[in-house]
Amino acid sequence: MKFPSSITVCEVGLRDGLQNEQTLISTQDKAALLKDIIDAGFPVIEVGSFMSPKAVPQMADTDELFRGLVNQGAEFRALIANAKGVERAAACGCKKVKLNVSASVSHNLANLNKTPAESVAGFAECVEVALANNVGVSGSISMPFGSPWDREIPVSDIKDIVDSYLAVGIDEISLSDTSGMAYPTQVYDICTRMQEDYPNVTWWLHFHNTRGMALANIVMAMSAGITRFDSAFAGVGGCPFVPGAAGNISSEDLLHMCDEMGIATGVSLDKSIAIGKRLQELIGRTTDSYIQRAGKSKSLVRELPKGQTKFPK
Amino acid sequence: MKFPSSITVCEVGLRDGLQNEQTLISTQDKAALLKDIIDAGFPVIEVGSFMSPKAVPQMADTDELFRGLVNQGAEFRALIANAKGVERAAACGCKKVKLNVSASVSHNLANLNKTPAESVAGFAECVEVALANNVGVSGSISMPFGSPWDREIPVSDIKDIVDSYLAVGIDEISLSDTSGMAYPTQVYDICTRMQEDYPNVTWWLHFHNTRGMALANIVMAMSAGITRFDSAFAGVGGCPFVPGAAGNISSEDLLHMCDEMGIATGVSLDKSIAIGKRLQELIGRTTDSYIQRAGKSKSLVRELPKGQTKFPK
Repeated sequence: MKFPSSITVCEVGLRDGLQNEQTLISTQDKAALLKDIIDAGFPVIEVGSFMSPKAVPQMADTDELFRGLVNQGAEFRALIANAKGVERAAACGCKKVKLNVSASVSHNLANLNKTPAESVAGFAECVEVALANNVGVSGSISMPFGSPWDREIPVSDIKDIVDSYLAVGIDEISLSDTSGMAYPTQVYDICTRMQEDYPNVTWWLHFHNTRGMALANIVMAMSAGITRFDSAFAGVGGCPFVPGAAGNISSEDLLHMCDEMGIATGVSLDKSIAIGKRLQELIGRTTDSYIQRAGKSKSLVRELPKGQTKFPK
Repeated sequence: MKFPSSITVCEVGLRDGLQNEQTLISTQDKAALLKDIIDAGFPVIEVGSFMSPKAVPQMADTDELFRGLVNQGAEFRALIANAKGVERAAACGCKKVKLNVSASVSHNLANLNKTPAESVAGFAECVEVALANNVGVSGSISMPFGSPWDREIPVSDIKDIVDSYLAVGIDEISLSDTSGMAYPTQVYDICTRMQEDYPNVTWWLHFHNTRGMALANIVMAMSAGITRFDSAFAGVGGCPFVPGAAGNISSEDLLHMCDEMGIATGVSLDKSIAIGKRLQELIGRTTDSYIQRAGKSKSLVRELPKGQTKFPK
């Protein structure tokens, strides 16, 4: 059983965590969260997305957030859907964008009359505009571990999409379990296979905790050699297919597990906990973060609690 | 990465799940739950405990529950603290009891002025009474992965307790992370070590999901060769040290993960989900069960949901 000595965590709360959040967070509050995220030491931060403000109102101020950024060593990225997104990125100083495609052939055909691989081929224009503007481009594949339309995605389908990404010049790719259907052995197998078949791709894994398996999946991905993971403050984000379900794996829970396992992240767990707490205040409810509820394992103190039974079990 | 083809799950909800529950569940409701648990196919069931009814009122009817049992193939066990418990077990037809000791030397010394190993040595009388009454005895070690009084428990301390259990004739032993402090690499290491050093012990693992790592810990324990796990309906049980924290790993969540991984349990996931749902009705609140909230991965249907965005991420 081998684990990496360190991993790279991307805080995606400002984007995937908030994009479907009912409570609208002010730009000022987001900027304060972003400052705290930088200060906590997250090496990669997903700030927002350049989509239509009508479609995703919560992300309407992404340009403004980027304009307010003073580069502080982290990599700041944003989600885009097309070349217009690259243009907005370039205009506000965003140096890294991420494209996304669903791994589900049937889903994609139904929506866009294209296979996922054909959709990715269409991203060539984005890459061209990005290159011309000195903006880096990464790609994401959502639901490669199963989608509501395809219980299991054939590995050959995932590889077709990866091949398409490589063909348009994108070699940093995220496997995003947005439907929360991934399970540990599957994660281990797919991560192993992808790294074997594409040793030069920079892989990211993105897990939602929809069915409680996110940390188990991350442990399996790490043991397969994956070292880059997304997580979101306080575990916000939900599941696009299941109202009321848990969201992204919480940054606090992931960082706490890594701290316990002796896997370095370069991020302050205490500061991440403070950010999650602040976020809960902003949205006015508790969220799916175990560490927010229970505190760190190390925070328990060495004294017999009042009323402690002799045989706690 | 190797996993067992099947595991044995013990439903502990009636005991560890309910013992600290505020809402008193009637004996009739408990009996109905027990019937459903048997019907779901759980091979081992922890029915209750034989403690002082004053100390643990929720468990006062354990004798009655056992008397109402018609043996239906499962193994029914109860927690006890002393020889009086064995006598109650024998009197009501309970054929398997479980003793427990804290792994924390400082905790045990403070409470009982004995080391844990010395406490276990004192269980000899229970074993004697049990043998005379044809009652089987197993043992549990709580907090071997860390306690509020000892951040890490030295492996030699755990081995001292195991040796003491073996010395009194108990060779079925549970490692119980009641403080919710276990983490994946630690679980793998300790499970590997214990099985190597004690190949003839029948090992059980018992995880609480206090810090969200229960399924990750179970995956690690399984990959280390452990095949017996406790879980509780709806994930009830809490943490004795952290008010409001999550409880035992939910049976539904564990069974769902096993189903997805192709690990046989012999238990009906659907029936387990129905039991958890019933329990939530009885206690009048939702609990820490992801599957109760999100449903099974397989339950998602193959049709585009209303309002589905083109690029769910």
